[in-house]
Amino acid sequence: MRNIAVLGFGVVGGGIYEALKPCINPPLSEVNIKYILDLRSFPGHPLADRVTSDYDRILADGSVEAVVETMGGVDPAYGFCLAALKAGKHVITSNKAVVDAHGEELERVAMENGVCYLYEASVGGGIPVVEPMRSCFYADTVTRVAGILNGTTNYILTHMRSEGITLAEALDVARRLGYAERDPKADLAGLDTARKLAILAGIAFGRYISYTDIPVIEGIEDVTLEDIQLAEQAGCLIKLFAVAERSGPDHAHMTVAPFLVGWHSLFHAVHDAQNAVCVTGSIVGDTVFYGSGAGRMPTAAAVCGDVARALNGDYKYHIRKKCEPGFILPEDESRFRKAVLPNGKTYRVYEK
Amino acid sequence: MRNIAVLGFGVVGGGIYEALKPCINPPLSEVNIKYILDLRSFPGHPLADRVTSDYDRILADGSVEAVVETMGGVDPAYGFCLAALKAGKHVITSNKAVVDAHGEELERVAMENGVCYLYEASVGGGIPVVEPMRSCFYADTVTRVAGILNGTTNYILTHMRSEGITLAEALDVARRLGYAERDPKADLAGLDTARKLAILAGIAFGRYISYTDIPVIEGIEDVTLEDIQLAEQAGCLIKLFAVAERSGPDHAHMTVAPFLVGWHSLFHAVHDAQNAVCVTGSIVGDTVFYGSGAGRMPTAAAVCGDVARALNGDYKYHIRKKCEPGFILPEDESRFRKAVLPNGKTYRVYEK
Repeated sequence: MRNIAVLGFGVVGGGIYEALKPCINPPLSEVNIKYILDLRSFPGHPLADRVTSDYDRILADGSVEAVVETMGGVDPAYGFCLAALKAGKHVITSNKAVVDAHGEELERVAMENGVCYLYEASVGGGIPVVEPMRSCFYADTVTRVAGILNGTTNYILTHMRSEGITLAEALDVARRLGYAERDPKADLAGLDTARKLAILAGIAFGRYISYTDIPVIEGIEDVTLEDIQLAEQAGCLIKLFAVAERSGPDHAHMTVAPFLVGWHSLFHAVHDAQNAVCVTGSIVGDTVFYGSGAGRMPTAAAVCGDVARALNGDYKYHIRKKCEPGFILPEDESRFRKAVLPNGKTYRVYEK
Repeated sequence: MRNIAVLGFGVVGGGIYEALKPCINPPLSEVNIKYILDLRSFPGHPLADRVTSDYDRILADGSVEAVVETMGGVDPAYGFCLAALKAGKHVITSNKAVVDAHGEELERVAMENGVCYLYEASVGGGIPVVEPMRSCFYADTVTRVAGILNGTTNYILTHMRSEGITLAEALDVARRLGYAERDPKADLAGLDTARKLAILAGIAFGRYISYTDIPVIEGIEDVTLEDIQLAEQAGCLIKLFAVAERSGPDHAHMTVAPFLVGWHSLFHAVHDAQNAVCVTGSIVGDTVFYGSGAGRMPTAAAVCGDVARALNGDYKYHIRKKCEPGFILPEDESRFRKAVLPNGKTYRVYEK
């Protein structure tokens, strides 16, 4: 029996229980969710008796090897993660806000305590990308990370076009299907995308980068049905892209914005809540990882993959350096080709 | 200094030297190619003095930690790999023929000798897929592996369509550009694709599977320019697909054949010598890995990634079971929808 605690028994937290149930191979088949930290109770749930609001009890229980944090938001999640690491417990998270704001400290504290801090599920939902970026580009220099990193906005843009509906209408549908949060601002304004880009670019460029360092973060609030239809007449879709690119050894550009993408691009076929990340190595060229970018079970599966990695001791430390001031260059307006739609609106063009 | 030997200094072997040169991070920055096993000599090459035709010298040198085999073909490569493992040296290979024919034995001997046998570069060139399949689907059951696994045939089919040329003409171009071997039969007949499918399906399904177990292996020899043009009029491309799919716990279907693929599919955008592999997990759904499926440097980069993994001790053993007779079902003609082109020719339809 390998005991873990799950902090936050919402969409993803509950999914972890569902994902673990059918596992027949160790270490996941041996995992026991000994505690669930939540202020709510879950009467009738098979794990109802595991729910507690007393985090100190979890910290004090030496039999708990790992803590899985799926609460979302920076506080109190950050403090809980820090305390768990200091108590010698592995921490696995799907919470990109904490990774973005405190990843540097948490990775260091994990190393100091001989445990791990893993966050595959914080970017790209169920797509393996954090781990492959760390373990599969040894011989290469990653020069560029780009992609569609937010399932909610991609779902909205896909359905505005396919159904001929407005952003507000598509948002309503997305909400009803569970693809959008009650407060969708972080998604629509590009902040969620920016956080994920900061995590991926940080890994790619060996620095701790925060989304607040990204000079251009535009969302999809100003994308109209008319824009989408005019773009389509020109053979393009409008997609919310995140692009981070090296510019020599000491500089990088980073941009989050809606782009036009042509039909020849692989990204043209990234529909609905799917995500895709293109990692460009100087030797290997473009490598794309595609899959379910959001959703209860894909995210839970990614978390469980990290739980297995933690319990197997199958992780390494990847301590990066601080992002030096000036590493991220101000937006260079000439970096992307631009196209003007017949209604006068200008969009950047995604060329790959 | 970490000494390795490279067996076969051809396209990929030479690329490994080029890929290692700029590496600035350990362990690859510390790698020294102490020996090159080749019957040819390479006057003027910086490593000309490392070339030997005496394999026993390499085996007897206890300072050689890893042997990289890029010779191609089953013999003598297989014997060389086996001897290296027995001598306690890691073996890294890009040679899918040996992996297919002797992978079971070589993985077992590697484990018995406390070293590793790694073959990321044997499938999908520079695309990380073997390692992610092993380390990123812990919590999931892989139900299906499918994709475009052969760069040569994909290049030929892409150019038949874009240039309006015959298969023979496109093959000539592919040969001139180094995308096709002098004897392209293994590529054109689907055998190379089948070997790669057998490796991926074996990992996915936890069994050692040989391409000779695959009931349907059709290549692209009978695909005409007319077929491609008629398919295009129906909004489809013709692509050589490999598909392996679970059918309950004890059975799987495996097929290699040209398929029609519609414009909505991600695979529609897999052009030229690119490869793409879709791994379907029962929880995570479809995850696609895309990138350079062939070529000197992408393949060399994948080999170097495995070299780093071996020298860092960053590998695990994944011993599988034998493929029981009857596990792979005979072809079920109704498994794929079929479409008849106006010229009377029938193709399977790839639906994802």
